[in-house]
Amino acid sequence: MPQDTLFPAEPADTRIQILAATYETLLETGYADLTIERIGDHFPKSTSLVYHHYEGKDELLLDFLSYLIETVEADVAIDRDADARTQLEELLDRVLGTTDDETAAFHRAIVEMRAQATTDPDYRRQFADHDQFFRDTIAAIVDRGIEEGTFCDVDPAAVATTLQALITGTLVQRTTGDVDPSAVRTEVAAYVEGRLLCEERRS
Amino acid sequence: MPQDTLFPAEPADTRIQILAATYETLLETGYADLTIERIGDHFPKSTSLVYHHYEGKDELLLDFLSYLIETVEADVAIDRDADARTQLEELLDRVLGTTDDETAAFHRAIVEMRAQATTDPDYRRQFADHDQFFRDTIAAIVDRGIEEGTFCDVDPAAVATTLQALITGTLVQRTTGDVDPSAVRTEVAAYVEGRLLCEERRS
Repeated sequence: MPQDTLFPAEPADTRIQILAATYETLLETGYADLTIERIGDHFPKSTSLVYHHYEGKDELLLDFLSYLIETVEADVAIDRDADARTQLEELLDRVLGTTDDETAAFHRAIVEMRAQATTDPDYRRQFADHDQFFRDTIAAIVDRGIEEGTFCDVDPAAVATTLQALITGTLVQRTTGDVDPSAVRTEVAAYVEGRLLCEERRS
Repeated sequence: MPQDTLFPAEPADTRIQILAATYETLLETGYADLTIERIGDHFPKSTSLVYHHYEGKDELLLDFLSYLIETVEADVAIDRDADARTQLEELLDRVLGTTDDETAAFHRAIVEMRAQATTDPDYRRQFADHDQFFRDTIAAIVDRGIEEGTFCDVDPAAVATTLQALITGTLVQRTTGDVDPSAVRTEVAAYVEGRLLCEERRS
């Protein structure tokens, strides 16, 4: 997710300035080597102001994660005029498509932060919220497809849960192991066709 | 994965003793708080012997991961006499089914270790090998199903890549966020039926 979709070009609000600096630092150093001092290097004002806002790295990063969800919530890049099938295909193209270097670096940082959620309940709550939001977004598209009569009468929540787990897994394997996202995309297209597109089967 | 399937009850080999102690310590403390000293507490011999075998925590854990792959490779719990469909369904039941506390703790440790692969090429190589092995296992089952005439003429590698990403994502969300594995299992059953089971559709 590129910086210009996450942050205004010249944020006036100090919190947003700190979060934008956090984003830049995450791209540069990743989660493990992130320090408030390093964030300070990307922050136009004094580093002491960062300490004034946040008690430490974890409090800052939890606010960063919560900001990401709010921002993505406010602007899920879905074409609201498109039909449900187009919306779903575009979303899948975006999350399973090629990624530029910035997005790849950001994904690495997110995967590192997600791993904190294995032991830290505050991180876990943030990621559970994220999972919930993203699942609801997909379920709403599927639900609309059913209402439009283009999608079969499936369980939107189950379909959304599955697509989201698949997207998460692809992202995690991309940054930590081995996966061919285009193979995933091809199979998801087959799943969408076989599972969701009732009209085409009938005609 | 329970300890008794990973390690012999009373391993004679020092390396295996160390790796079994590592497993127990990972369940107890997770990755982040793991130290050679703590592993020493679970090791029947002197902790200095652990240092004699490994330069540090990361070298030990990389050998641990490599042992896991070897062991799982030697004993993928697949019923070799079953047909491809049964093998695939049993594998999916196992990885998407309920997990006991020990398995859940082990999964948390694995997710923490996987996150190291975002920045550490040695970890990344181990997880890429793991991904490759697991994908090959699934692809071999799909391939056999095609040969048996029960599965359609799909691309076994693409199906395997997709199922594996889905399994990884479910595991990661289970330990770090929110997911309903039973919803995933239901949709995977629909995918297997719609995408793989040609015979049933024809009859």
